[in-house]
Amino acid sequence: MPTNRNSNTLILKRLGIDTQWEYYIYMQANCHICRSEGFESLTRVQVTFQDKTIIATLNVLGSDLLNNKQASLSESAWKALGVKEGDKIAIAHLHPVESMSLVRSKIYGKRLNESDMSAIIKDITLGHYSGVQMAAFITTCSGDNMDVHEIAALTKAMVNIGQKLKWKKKMIVDKHCVGGLPGNRTTPIVVSIVAAAGLTIPKTSSRAITSPAGTADVMETMTNVSLTLKDIKRVVNQEGGCMVWGGAVQLSPADDLLIKIEKALDFDGEGLMIASVLSKKAAAGSTHVVIDIPVGETAKVRTLVDAHKLKYYFTVVGQVIGLEVEVIITDGIQPVGNGIGPVPEALDVLAVLKGDKNRPKDLEDRAILIAGAILELANEVSIGQGKFAAQQLLQSGSAYEKFLAICQVQGGFKTPKLSPIVHQIYSEKAGILRTIDNRRLAMIAKLSGAPSDLGAGLILHKKMGDKIKKGEALFTIYTDTQGELNYTLKYLAQQSDILTIT
Amino acid sequence: MPTNRNSNTLILKRLGIDTQWEYYIYMQANCHICRSEGFESLTRVQVTFQDKTIIATLNVLGSDLLNNKQASLSESAWKALGVKEGDKIAIAHLHPVESMSLVRSKIYGKRLNESDMSAIIKDITLGHYSGVQMAAFITTCSGDNMDVHEIAALTKAMVNIGQKLKWKKKMIVDKHCVGGLPGNRTTPIVVSIVAAAGLTIPKTSSRAITSPAGTADVMETMTNVSLTLKDIKRVVNQEGGCMVWGGAVQLSPADDLLIKIEKALDFDGEGLMIASVLSKKAAAGSTHVVIDIPVGETAKVRTLVDAHKLKYYFTVVGQVIGLEVEVIITDGIQPVGNGIGPVPEALDVLAVLKGDKNRPKDLEDRAILIAGAILELANEVSIGQGKFAAQQLLQSGSAYEKFLAICQVQGGFKTPKLSPIVHQIYSEKAGILRTIDNRRLAMIAKLSGAPSDLGAGLILHKKMGDKIKKGEALFTIYTDTQGELNYTLKYLAQQSDILTIT
Repeated sequence: MPTNRNSNTLILKRLGIDTQWEYYIYMQANCHICRSEGFESLTRVQVTFQDKTIIATLNVLGSDLLNNKQASLSESAWKALGVKEGDKIAIAHLHPVESMSLVRSKIYGKRLNESDMSAIIKDITLGHYSGVQMAAFITTCSGDNMDVHEIAALTKAMVNIGQKLKWKKKMIVDKHCVGGLPGNRTTPIVVSIVAAAGLTIPKTSSRAITSPAGTADVMETMTNVSLTLKDIKRVVNQEGGCMVWGGAVQLSPADDLLIKIEKALDFDGEGLMIASVLSKKAAAGSTHVVIDIPVGETAKVRTLVDAHKLKYYFTVVGQVIGLEVEVIITDGIQPVGNGIGPVPEALDVLAVLKGDKNRPKDLEDRAILIAGAILELANEVSIGQGKFAAQQLLQSGSAYEKFLAICQVQGGFKTPKLSPIVHQIYSEKAGILRTIDNRRLAMIAKLSGAPSDLGAGLILHKKMGDKIKKGEALFTIYTDTQGELNYTLKYLAQQSDILTIT
Repeated sequence: MPTNRNSNTLILKRLGIDTQWEYYIYMQANCHICRSEGFESLTRVQVTFQDKTIIATLNVLGSDLLNNKQASLSESAWKALGVKEGDKIAIAHLHPVESMSLVRSKIYGKRLNESDMSAIIKDITLGHYSGVQMAAFITTCSGDNMDVHEIAALTKAMVNIGQKLKWKKKMIVDKHCVGGLPGNRTTPIVVSIVAAAGLTIPKTSSRAITSPAGTADVMETMTNVSLTLKDIKRVVNQEGGCMVWGGAVQLSPADDLLIKIEKALDFDGEGLMIASVLSKKAAAGSTHVVIDIPVGETAKVRTLVDAHKLKYYFTVVGQVIGLEVEVIITDGIQPVGNGIGPVPEALDVLAVLKGDKNRPKDLEDRAILIAGAILELANEVSIGQGKFAAQQLLQSGSAYEKFLAICQVQGGFKTPKLSPIVHQIYSEKAGILRTIDNRRLAMIAKLSGAPSDLGAGLILHKKMGDKIKKGEALFTIYTDTQGELNYTLKYLAQQSDILTIT
């Protein structure tokens, strides 16, 4: 708090600068606050309006965009404080972020306990950490550098800081797939089957972190996914399930911030991933959770050894926070379904739900496997009967009906639309399709504009083992702009063997 | 490179936004480049003007500060590209930074070899790494997480990317003190003694990383420290020594960028520190280097075990890159000299050089110890005679004369001036001064404005073991502004036992 509140106030003028989630404040170099407080560019300061306070990074202006009694805020900061032009904001020194000393001690080998993790997660949630500070925390918690106690402590800290959902039913089920397998969009199908079976599955999903599409991105092409807690409750109470974006309800607000930095770094450590997944399940009120870990050379998890380690972590951390967790390890050698990107994957989901003749069977099989595991874990059917029961609910059309009903109460169903610029990639030789590099295929979908352009991405026309003729179409790229298509094709021209044909 | 250069150009308008070392570009949300390339805020893009290219982070403007044919750059980016209003810049997609995959593999336990380190350091030097990416590299290389081969590889990579100084003489000496001990400003004294002895010591120093003053900050209060390579050569050829800021000559440009992030994180790992120190010595053309490691509970290096590990690393890495390194481990229990902050420390240096009656004897003793070690390492005197020879050069006034001569050719000597706002801290009790917390004392000096306000900081009036009367002055705080004094005093009021008196 400033010593003298009035001496530290400036009048807001809107400059309309979009810095996304990073809060910035703009002040004149020779305004009285910069001079009296010794502020310079990149200083992190406390900005207060009425009862709200945020932490923002200072950019100093040498020009006359502002006079020396004015300040401006970046668009996200403007929104977070709920201000309008002419409002008076107070600016004060930021106290040193004390929990950063815990991050430093972790880098130097100390284990972090529950109270350490709570202090860090609290400061991150309050916006006290800058991007580079969050990057240091993420890095030191990545690469198998957290033991199971630390992961559990981090998970608990994340659960405790956010909102928690309460339900009338005792048993609440959920599922999660450890990402990295393009097109593996089982969630909408599984939720529809499980809810059609009468179970309660309040599914919150994330947007893509390092992949071309997250489930929330895919669902957004078909319905509204940004629901309030109140609306989620209404949807789940009415239909038994929902398919919404978790970020909108701040079930794990620290995690939402960390994920943005993980995205910029293009990596997320396994401990962070487990904490991220299980904290959101616990906060959503789940009691029984099935985790699917696809394993393959170019999937996120590459070996069975890694998969079993994750299974161990998920199970133990689940126990610590009171979740019944069942982990299934599946084949992750090739993409699931035909599409990669929000709309391409949504089209696959709809094909399976509708039972289209050309539906991707691999996606259907996976969805049935997972839905079956949930039905068994929840004692809805006896062991060994899950897959059969799930299949029945899908084939009968009950699951598709349930899907449309959920979309309806979430805000209405809309048909997903591919991006307008279309480019086909043809095979330069004949032979058998031997391998598919999931990572580079995901890169192509990302370069084409996915996930931020919902219609962008690609649709594969062949599966591993298929016979390919020379000149036959291998996949089709969809982009919103010619610039993105050019850039994607340039990358593609530099690559060899994304699909190996011999 | 853009596919069509003309379609990717915008006209520059200056907005005067200071974002320090981070390059930003500002564009209208609905300009043709944002639309055709799919750019959004925080996208990192290539910006080209004539033959120069930089990487900048995009901030999108929703207001009318720019029209849709205009762009603006932050002040540092404006300067780096050497542009003026009305110039036409080209904007293109940034290729993914490939060496980040090496950083990721390091986080997952892979050792980095010389070619890995070279790739990373090259990308950092070119500005391809964002702040969060550099933070990830720094974090994974901190906390004893690099072995001696990796430290050597990093050091070599840093040496190879920058400029290298060549000298006519065969033997070039240098010294470095591993920081963390407030006030330990031996460098100007050591350089003066050693140059007075006829040796060549082209000393480049850094600015403060996490401390209240670096040697370059201290020297800047007395002379010009931002010299070009050509001027450094002139000074050293004429006087045998110099005392300049290394950052100005880009002897290790990647290191200069890394240090900025280390400053924001408030930590630097030991491997990074060794690479930073030795790469600068090698680039400066040194052959014989004395490293001083002060050890104490509240110094940077806390235990003898840590000091000996550093000694091992310094010696071995020195051998790998062809440097003769002599490490001396010294007592780092209390601050050296009386001042903490650029000007307060400069006043101590001058008092020792002039032989003032009230000069800080501890600073003098340390300077003689180090200068003596250099004289012996360089075979200027026989083993055991170094300290005596150094003392003679100081007492005779030769060192002070040399100091003034060097300042003169660097740009002239000026008298350092303390900040105008003065506040004394008195003892609340009587007794013996038992301990001094160096870390928190450094924090007080930093809160008072050091090192960016050169005159800010504090002057201690007592040493450990001194008898203190109640109400006697313990130290004096100097600040440029009342705001900084208030903030410093507020911090001080929350602390106990920075000086323990019993």
